[in-house]
Amino acid sequence: MKTFNSRLSAKIRQKKSHLCVGLDMNPEGLGSPGTTLDALKAHAFKVIDATQDLVAAFKPNLAFFERWGSAGFKWLEETMDHFGDDAIIIGDAKRGDIGNTAKQYAHSLFNHFGFDAVTLSPYMGVDSIAPFTENSEKGVFILCRTSNPSAVDLQNLPIGDELLFDKTAQLAVEWNMNDNVGLVVGATAPEEISRIRNHAPELPFLIPGIGAQGGDLANSMIDGNTNGDAIINVSRGISFAGDLSEKAIRNAAKDYVNKMRELMNE
Amino acid sequence: MKTFNSRLSAKIRQKKSHLCVGLDMNPEGLGSPGTTLDALKAHAFKVIDATQDLVAAFKPNLAFFERWGSAGFKWLEETMDHFGDDAIIIGDAKRGDIGNTAKQYAHSLFNHFGFDAVTLSPYMGVDSIAPFTENSEKGVFILCRTSNPSAVDLQNLPIGDELLFDKTAQLAVEWNMNDNVGLVVGATAPEEISRIRNHAPELPFLIPGIGAQGGDLANSMIDGNTNGDAIINVSRGISFAGDLSEKAIRNAAKDYVNKMRELMNE
Repeated sequence: MKTFNSRLSAKIRQKKSHLCVGLDMNPEGLGSPGTTLDALKAHAFKVIDATQDLVAAFKPNLAFFERWGSAGFKWLEETMDHFGDDAIIIGDAKRGDIGNTAKQYAHSLFNHFGFDAVTLSPYMGVDSIAPFTENSEKGVFILCRTSNPSAVDLQNLPIGDELLFDKTAQLAVEWNMNDNVGLVVGATAPEEISRIRNHAPELPFLIPGIGAQGGDLANSMIDGNTNGDAIINVSRGISFAGDLSEKAIRNAAKDYVNKMRELMNE
Repeated sequence: MKTFNSRLSAKIRQKKSHLCVGLDMNPEGLGSPGTTLDALKAHAFKVIDATQDLVAAFKPNLAFFERWGSAGFKWLEETMDHFGDDAIIIGDAKRGDIGNTAKQYAHSLFNHFGFDAVTLSPYMGVDSIAPFTENSEKGVFILCRTSNPSAVDLQNLPIGDELLFDKTAQLAVEWNMNDNVGLVVGATAPEEISRIRNHAPELPFLIPGIGAQGGDLANSMIDGNTNGDAIINVSRGISFAGDLSEKAIRNAAKDYVNKMRELMNE
């Protein structure tokens, strides 16, 4: 079987798409604060149906499912069943725990739910990553330089001549023994994308922060796709586009895919 | 209403107990690898019933519930209902995500499941913490210096004259605007407990790593309880003690409580 990183790369090429659609199913996204779980479930299926032939990946964020407790996890199970084989499915979980516990999370996310890859926090070191990278077919994206304003609190602390996120990128390269480690690098930190690319020329990047968070698409695409691959995540700008119809959602996704193809001369 | 940190402190004094029992319901703990969810559920209730009058806190680790998907989250809901009001319930979740997403996790853990406090990762900075500290009655324990061997990968990187975990401790003190922030400091890093205590004299410590991980109880109790409070987590050493009977579990918990009382001259 192929490693995760080579599977992702092949998917990007096969579909000529660097788009990852984030499924952040915020109850407020549908416009009324009293939105029911059933309404959100129907909307998530609509987003998947409208975009799955266009995207390289989907990225459900687990927080929006966990919000509803066991009913939300049941919904996540149904959502995983709804995805076809047409896209890579990344569980945005940002987990990170000691080895024995990390094994349970890996079992949950890879075996029970069936994600192709997950996001992880690096704060506890390699013990917390290794249980997820044992199987080379499954992948991890390690938080490196995130897209939120307070990312700098820890990530930009100076370590000698470098910053903490530089060290995280270097460690991720060491941890990439099975060709299945990538990095999360926010589009809101444009200078840092090429800097991290220098540390990790071959690792795939998952780049969030485009759209509502104000990140720069051209820069993310060009610097992110130098040497290694980058997929660009858009959540609200597609999942809750326009009048929330299947057509509006599909058009928003097409628009992003076309912009990305132009930037890559594809 | 009282702040989380004052509630925890009152609970420790009322019960003369610094013990936190970790509910890491590993299927392998019951001895047969084919353990069913029902067997684990019954065992978790047994641990709670056998120890709840003795402990300051319980700490269910979410990984061991998530392992089973929606059925595991249903079990977690039932477990939360099973706890009385006699102990503080800490959700060991180690979450950390951007503000809007962190809000969903806070809703899940505090409002849906009803935890009194949760563990969080600091890697994404204050945005990822603030949604959990808004309500002063609910608490957070921020990962500072963890108990696992690879904790040093990031946490012991040098920042000027200090190490990353020193900075985390200092940031946590800044973030403690509502008297509801504490720190996770592993018993396996004994010199570091007093060092972190100097940075954060008033913050409660949650100290894991006693028992199977080999941490030092006397040092953890004495340095941890200098100025602020410390609760000491024991998971496997109590939850899966001896012949797994209610009596063996209760005796193991009593033994830890008595050792801690002796160390504190209580």
